[in-house]
Amino acid sequence: MVKKPAPDTTRRSERSRRAIYDAALALVGEVGYAKTTIEGIAARAGVGKQTIYRWWPSKADVLLEAFLDLGEQAAEQAAEAAERGAGQAAEQGARPGAEYGIPDTGDLGADLKFVLRATVDELLDPKFEAPSRALAAEGVVNEQLGREFVAKLLEPQLQLYVRRLRSAQDAGHVRPDVDPRIALELFVSPLAQRWLQHTGPISHEYTDTLVDYALHGLAPR
Amino acid sequence: MVKKPAPDTTRRSERSRRAIYDAALALVGEVGYAKTTIEGIAARAGVGKQTIYRWWPSKADVLLEAFLDLGEQAAEQAAEAAERGAGQAAEQGARPGAEYGIPDTGDLGADLKFVLRATVDELLDPKFEAPSRALAAEGVVNEQLGREFVAKLLEPQLQLYVRRLRSAQDAGHVRPDVDPRIALELFVSPLAQRWLQHTGPISHEYTDTLVDYALHGLAPR
Repeated sequence: MVKKPAPDTTRRSERSRRAIYDAALALVGEVGYAKTTIEGIAARAGVGKQTIYRWWPSKADVLLEAFLDLGEQAAEQAAEAAERGAGQAAEQGARPGAEYGIPDTGDLGADLKFVLRATVDELLDPKFEAPSRALAAEGVVNEQLGREFVAKLLEPQLQLYVRRLRSAQDAGHVRPDVDPRIALELFVSPLAQRWLQHTGPISHEYTDTLVDYALHGLAPR
Repeated sequence: MVKKPAPDTTRRSERSRRAIYDAALALVGEVGYAKTTIEGIAARAGVGKQTIYRWWPSKADVLLEAFLDLGEQAAEQAAEAAERGAGQAAEQGARPGAEYGIPDTGDLGADLKFVLRATVDELLDPKFEAPSRALAAEGVVNEQLGREFVAKLLEPQLQLYVRRLRSAQDAGHVRPDVDPRIALELFVSPLAQRWLQHTGPISHEYTDTLVDYALHGLAPR
């Protein structure tokens, strides 16, 4: 719960905010969630700890916003890359920057592959890896924190897949009796488990395969 | 690596071994992996720490064997339950106790649902929950431990699905071009992610749905 807005929006406070996010993410990646403290974040960011307490009531709140910010940065970068024509879906006329959503070119398989490839790149980015792992590990054993971060960080991303799958249902590309919230797990969860539990390598080829299997099924047609 | 076998197989050493497994699982569930020590396990089990060091070189090895033992107990219980006619697949003539494997009644969907329902029950069993979460959380941030436990605990279980899917391919029930090691993730990983990350409730109905979606695909046939 972030109850107190920033007291001003000057460049100086924006710089402090950015330094605090960076410090929080770096620290949690290095020492884990349990050993990350407001004092440690303040020291690393070069601000007084009262500066942090003025804006956020707890370390969980600082980290939540730092991850939201990191996600927004990544989405902006992905949108810029797509606009430069780097993305396959963008070449096909998608609008990947729209609401940081999932492109809708009319080709569900291509759109899902595009987004999952970007997710693979993000998961392999060292800037994300250590802090994301530290937070995920804490969420496994700390149910309250886990549920809060799922509600605020993960579920909103999953809802983008729900929306894309509903659109595909409207277009007749997904069976009408399929529950989109469960269906998305057929391609999202395998990637998540391989990354979280080190159960296998992740790559663009791998996520492409997941999409093909999920859409067309394992049984012969 | 467990290099030293038990010095004898008397009832007394079997009792110690069981007490050490129980203590190790209880302790890791209560205080987490990092704070679990050989000394703590020894004190709780009522044995000298030299007794533990004589049989296992490290706490990771004690825990690995304790989990293997827990899994064997669960498999034995499941086999007994199936033999008593409680299991649907058993009623259909399956041999669920065979190698603690996956039944092969010729109906792939029914066999997968049977095993996944048992997995749901196991994941919801408090005896498993705390120690399994503690170990999974450590594996997320400790790649070496994570990989060792995957190799020795998780991957052997996943290979049972690989074998069942290969048998289904031979019977023409799964497309021949499907990679079974990836295919199994379509129903195993969603359950794992919901449980690990608290992203949603788990139930028999849920895993039944996963199997149906995976086998038949999301796209209309």
